[in-house]
Amino acid sequence: MYQKIDVGDTNQYSLYLDAPLNQLGEYLDEKYGAKAHYLIITNTLVADLYADSLLEGLTQFRTDLITVPDSEEEKSLARISKLTEQALSCRADRDTIVLALGGGVIGDLAGFFASVYMRGIRYIHIPTTFLAQIDSSIGSKVAVNHSSGKNLLGAFYAPQLVWTDFDTLKTLPWEELQNGLAETIKHSMVSDFTLFEFIEQHVKDIKELNYELIKEVALRSIAVKVKIVNQDVKEKGLRVLLNLGHSFGHALETDEKYQGITHGQGVSVGLVAASHIACGRGLLTEAQLNRIINLLNEFDLPTTIEHRNPQDLLQHMTADKKNKAGTKILVLPVGIGNVALVSDCEDNEIISAWKKVMK
Amino acid sequence: MYQKIDVGDTNQYSLYLDAPLNQLGEYLDEKYGAKAHYLIITNTLVADLYADSLLEGLTQFRTDLITVPDSEEEKSLARISKLTEQALSCRADRDTIVLALGGGVIGDLAGFFASVYMRGIRYIHIPTTFLAQIDSSIGSKVAVNHSSGKNLLGAFYAPQLVWTDFDTLKTLPWEELQNGLAETIKHSMVSDFTLFEFIEQHVKDIKELNYELIKEVALRSIAVKVKIVNQDVKEKGLRVLLNLGHSFGHALETDEKYQGITHGQGVSVGLVAASHIACGRGLLTEAQLNRIINLLNEFDLPTTIEHRNPQDLLQHMTADKKNKAGTKILVLPVGIGNVALVSDCEDNEIISAWKKVMK
Repeated sequence: MYQKIDVGDTNQYSLYLDAPLNQLGEYLDEKYGAKAHYLIITNTLVADLYADSLLEGLTQFRTDLITVPDSEEEKSLARISKLTEQALSCRADRDTIVLALGGGVIGDLAGFFASVYMRGIRYIHIPTTFLAQIDSSIGSKVAVNHSSGKNLLGAFYAPQLVWTDFDTLKTLPWEELQNGLAETIKHSMVSDFTLFEFIEQHVKDIKELNYELIKEVALRSIAVKVKIVNQDVKEKGLRVLLNLGHSFGHALETDEKYQGITHGQGVSVGLVAASHIACGRGLLTEAQLNRIINLLNEFDLPTTIEHRNPQDLLQHMTADKKNKAGTKILVLPVGIGNVALVSDCEDNEIISAWKKVMK
Repeated sequence: MYQKIDVGDTNQYSLYLDAPLNQLGEYLDEKYGAKAHYLIITNTLVADLYADSLLEGLTQFRTDLITVPDSEEEKSLARISKLTEQALSCRADRDTIVLALGGGVIGDLAGFFASVYMRGIRYIHIPTTFLAQIDSSIGSKVAVNHSSGKNLLGAFYAPQLVWTDFDTLKTLPWEELQNGLAETIKHSMVSDFTLFEFIEQHVKDIKELNYELIKEVALRSIAVKVKIVNQDVKEKGLRVLLNLGHSFGHALETDEKYQGITHGQGVSVGLVAASHIACGRGLLTEAQLNRIINLLNEFDLPTTIEHRNPQDLLQHMTADKKNKAGTKILVLPVGIGNVALVSDCEDNEIISAWKKVMK
């Protein structure tokens, strides 16, 4: 029934899309046999909503469930240490398979945990948020945060598979959908103008939570991500283009210590800041800039921030992984649906973009 | 001048043996060009002895040096976090290459740091202890400890190359040489009876620090390790045989919280404990058992421990990575120069072996 899309080259895995949670067990039984041990890592919120339907299909296996609090702060080395203790007391061994049930935080945390526990065990992504489904569950990137920067410690570590049940979107708070929409709009700006138009045309449907329509947006957004990841699994080139808006967004998140702002909100402001620089360089017209701002505003995504010291934000940007020592590399929009990687961004230009997004 | 041996299959790298520290720079210049950034991670002790001769060859590069205290306790997530801060302030980026200068602790720590920093950067092992040269620098295993067990968090992450200068052995304290000899004797017990005999025949030379002789032992020991690693890079099968004595040894180290006992001392007692079980099963003769104990004693390696609760030690063994849930897998000697992996070890048998090594 479900759709299957292959990702990656060296470590190929598959996305199973529109795949019901309670049918995963049947699939696993065929693939790994009934003797396998599964360690579900999720958060308290998602556990309440979906642990039962997942477990319903897993009755023939030895399973353990670990819940962590629902917070970006949990993406930490301290939580990795705690998970290690808990996994050991569940007798998790090198043959255990981690099931990462949740959004981007759980996927990153549980995936990184799997990558280091006993020098690496297998894991499966079961993304339950729009953002995780269209973005973070695809591409083998796992990580935790560090006080000096977001996702500073991590790995490229491919899951066994990704099991995506779009029905989980039905319980998703609007704020979470918003979060994902920021990334979808980014995907469209990076390489699919028709997706940008499609979202523009269906603003009303999306806001009225027409799930068939939202699923369509998700599928088209996933296609963009898979296309780019498949061409650059280790983020050595092309894939960096997906970071449009993220250098700015991460700096904001770091500045807020990951508390005052969601990832999607950071990306939204970041897309506008990058667009201002692009506009200044003649890569984007005023009309295109406004069209981008308008679409983000339609979904109540922030396009401005409260006043603060732009030097601090600049400082946070230098800790970004994508920067090479001594230069600022930025992805900028070129019209809508194309991007360019520029390595000659001067501090003044960036400061001025930060000022333009300040109220 | 130096010898070159290739290791690995999927991620092939080379060991450069008998390669002078101060000539590494020249090699790196050819391989990576003069613009590369090197981050040396070492401990205070090794820095005093060898940082200068290493840096002598690196003057054309941007280099930074980070020292950590000289202790097994530094193999921790807390130290990984601290290294992250320090690396950022040295502007280490995804193109930086880590030089792990030191013994097994530094190799494991700096290698694991390299595997997770910005989702993985390159590193080079420069082992300066006998143990690191013959064992831990070969095989891509990196890790930190956790309060629940040794090397619980880590990765299989291949270095770019290993640069081994045997001259560093000349400043090595006898205790460190002893440490390595325990692993060498283990290597010989696993798959090279002629190496076991060679060590027996040259006890006096080794104890009198005849470095030509020690180098010969090192080279033969390295050959055993490489042979086994090459056949099983991911420790899915054959390579587990190299863990002879280690389940016992790690349990002792955990029991002592890595302070009262060195790794080599743990392995030494572990070899004897495993030999007692082998003897009880008729895999080893009394004469062979005594021959093993005698050789370890010749180097003042411990073959007994103070009395303690064997149940505690058994408990520590169940946290060992090599154990699958619910069963005890042990490597046992079969004569001298061969081993067997057995999965039917009962708690009684293990408890009885622990009692036999207690004074």
